[in-house]
Amino acid sequence: MLIEIDFNSEEAIYVQLRNQIIVAIATSQLKNGESLPSVRNMADDIGVNMHTVNKAYSSLRQDGFLKVDRRRGAVVSVDIDKINSLNKMRCLLKPLIASGIVKGVSRDEVKKLIDEIYDDME
Amino acid sequence: MLIEIDFNSEEAIYVQLRNQIIVAIATSQLKNGESLPSVRNMADDIGVNMHTVNKAYSSLRQDGFLKVDRRRGAVVSVDIDKINSLNKMRCLLKPLIASGIVKGVSRDEVKKLIDEIYDDME
Repeated sequence: MLIEIDFNSEEAIYVQLRNQIIVAIATSQLKNGESLPSVRNMADDIGVNMHTVNKAYSSLRQDGFLKVDRRRGAVVSVDIDKINSLNKMRCLLKPLIASGIVKGVSRDEVKKLIDEIYDDME
Repeated sequence: MLIEIDFNSEEAIYVQLRNQIIVAIATSQLKNGESLPSVRNMADDIGVNMHTVNKAYSSLRQDGFLKVDRRRGAVVSVDIDKINSLNKMRCLLKPLIASGIVKGVSRDEVKKLIDEIYDDME
């Protein structure tokens, strides 16, 4: 798994790390049961603070993408709670769609984007 | 425009404020050319720090939702740069779709959500 942090991005570093781990799980670069690098190794590899890696791992744990095992550290473990996932997605999509509406992006254009992204990842 | 901040949410307060203003513009509760409350008034109204309101307004200005006028303060002014908007949307949708794929949410389910949200707002 290759993590690339953009230190000039507006997006918080822990969010970038979190999102790239989710994409790696979605594209099967990381599989269920696989261990992530330790917080210290990940922090060294990508050149960020251990606190930042901890924050990303905690947020992934909280959202049901990994578990923390005393011996093995952070392990990919997807908790499929579909109703919860759909509700969370609705909350996250709402401001995105609102900003699309304001900027004149149609629902068909959004659906085309959805198809492109699914095609890329599946 | 009614702003409701959830102080227990994981989502940063400035992001909540920013998103609610975008939804208000999308649903025509706030119209192009309309002034937003001053930073001080908004901060008092919703019970947050002025710095937080400033951060929300700056981020909205940067993303082309408002302009800051010396006399009138923050004024809704939508800058329609569709290519940029679509690119931005693609970047924001990607981690969301990735997390959907991991959690077993199908593209049809996502498209249904998109329809629901568009129907609610339009």
